[in-house]
Amino acid sequence: MKQNIYDNNDFFEQYKALRAQEHNYNNLLEKPNFFTLMPDVKDKVVLDIGCGMGDFAAICMERGAKHVTGIDISTNMIAMARSLYTDANLNFKQVPFEDFTVPAASIDLISSSLAFHYIADFSQLIEKISLALRMDGILLFSIQHPIVTASKAQTGWCLDEHKNLVHYAVDDYHSEGLRKLDWFVEGVEMYHHTLSTLVNTLIEHGLQIEKIIEPKPTEEAIKQLPKIQKELRRPSFLIVRARKV
Amino acid sequence: MKQNIYDNNDFFEQYKALRAQEHNYNNLLEKPNFFTLMPDVKDKVVLDIGCGMGDFAAICMERGAKHVTGIDISTNMIAMARSLYTDANLNFKQVPFEDFTVPAASIDLISSSLAFHYIADFSQLIEKISLALRMDGILLFSIQHPIVTASKAQTGWCLDEHKNLVHYAVDDYHSEGLRKLDWFVEGVEMYHHTLSTLVNTLIEHGLQIEKIIEPKPTEEAIKQLPKIQKELRRPSFLIVRARKV
Repeated sequence: MKQNIYDNNDFFEQYKALRAQEHNYNNLLEKPNFFTLMPDVKDKVVLDIGCGMGDFAAICMERGAKHVTGIDISTNMIAMARSLYTDANLNFKQVPFEDFTVPAASIDLISSSLAFHYIADFSQLIEKISLALRMDGILLFSIQHPIVTASKAQTGWCLDEHKNLVHYAVDDYHSEGLRKLDWFVEGVEMYHHTLSTLVNTLIEHGLQIEKIIEPKPTEEAIKQLPKIQKELRRPSFLIVRARKV
Repeated sequence: MKQNIYDNNDFFEQYKALRAQEHNYNNLLEKPNFFTLMPDVKDKVVLDIGCGMGDFAAICMERGAKHVTGIDISTNMIAMARSLYTDANLNFKQVPFEDFTVPAASIDLISSSLAFHYIADFSQLIEKISLALRMDGILLFSIQHPIVTASKAQTGWCLDEHKNLVHYAVDDYHSEGLRKLDWFVEGVEMYHHTLSTLVNTLIEHGLQIEKIIEPKPTEEAIKQLPKIQKELRRPSFLIVRARKV
C-alpha cells in the first residue's frame, strides 16, 4: 500500500499552514536553490512528479513550456492544484509516482521537489524517468539529505541542558530503507538512501550528474528566519541536476 | 607552510605500525573498494598523488603500466618507497601535491588514496589534475568522508555511560576548511569540503563522475576486525572515479 500522508486531513491542514508561511524552509532554502538549476523550459514538455499544489508546474507554464503534467498521489493536493491553476496545456493527474506512464523519450524536463524520499524503490523510479526523458533531457530533483534520513531513531539534533543545539546525530547510514518519523502526525514514512546509491543509480541509468547543491542559508534568509542558521551545521536537502546522455 | 606530518618521526613510526597490521581499515575497507574502480592500466601512464610507501604504484607496474610516477611530500615515505620498489619505469619524487608539474594531457590514470583531505585548495588541485589527464583519462581517489571531517570539534562517536556507541556527531558542515585532530600526535591538519563541493569541482573542471563508493564492511571484514562494524553506521571514506571528457 503506497503511503498517502497528504490525504490524512490532520496532516494536510498543518502542512498547508506551514507552506502558507512566507518564511519557511522551502521558500528560503530549497526553492531558490532549485530554481538556480532549472533549465530553459520554453516550448518544452515538463513532467513534475509530486506536484503538490501545482506551483512549480504553473511556473513552467509562465516560462513558456509547451505542456506540463503534474502528478501527485494525493487527491487533496490535486484538487488544490486544479482549483489554483487552469490552462489547457497544464494537466494534473492523481496517480502514485510509481505508476505514472508516459511515452518513451517524450519529456524534456522531469522535476520533483522534496518527494523522492517517499519512494521505496528509487532504482525503479529512475529507470522509468530515464526512459521517459528525451536525449539531453534534464532530471532536476530535491530530496531529504542522507545525513538527515539516516538515523532509524530520527534522533536529529542533540541538545545540551540549556536546549542549545550541540550537534546532529548520524547513525544507521548503510541501512537503507524505511524510516518513520513524527512530522505533524505520527509515523510519516520515508526512505533513506545513501549518497552513493542516489548518485550511482542515476549514472547507471544513463543520467549524467551536472550539479549537486546542498542548500546553505543566505545572510538574508537568516535575518528573516533566524532558526534557519542551523542549516549551516548540517544540510537538510540535496538538489541534483542530471542530463540524459 | 605545507603540512608534512609523515616526516614527524613519532607519527611516522605509529603510522607504519598501523599499516603493518593485516586487519586495518585500509586493507579491509578502503583498498578493496578502491580496486573495484581501477581501470586497466596496461601500457598506460600513471601518476599516484600521495603515494606513501609506493604500494599502489608498484601494483600498477605489476599490471603492465608503461610508466608510473609516485609523488609524496614526505621524505620518510619516498625513502621507504624507493627501498621497497625498484623498476626503471617507476619513479618516486618527493614533492608537495600542490607543486607537481607534468606535461598537459600526458597521464592516463591519476590515483590518490586517502591524501586529498590534506589539501587546502581542492579546486586548484583538480584544475591541475584535469590539465594533466589525457582525454578519457581517469581520476580515481579516496578521501575522508565529509560526514567525518565536518565537525570542528571532531567529536566523532558519542558514547553512553557503558561506552557503547550511540551515534556519530555531525556539525559545522558548511564551514569548509581546516580541521585539526589528534591522530597519533596532536594537531594533524586536514581540510573539510562538502560533498557538493567535491562533486561540483570535478564537474566544473571537465571530469565526469562515473561512480562513488562509500565503503561498507563485508561480513568477512567484520569477522576479522569486529570493531569495523561501526562503519555500517556512518561512512568513513568516499571513493570517486571520474573521467576527463
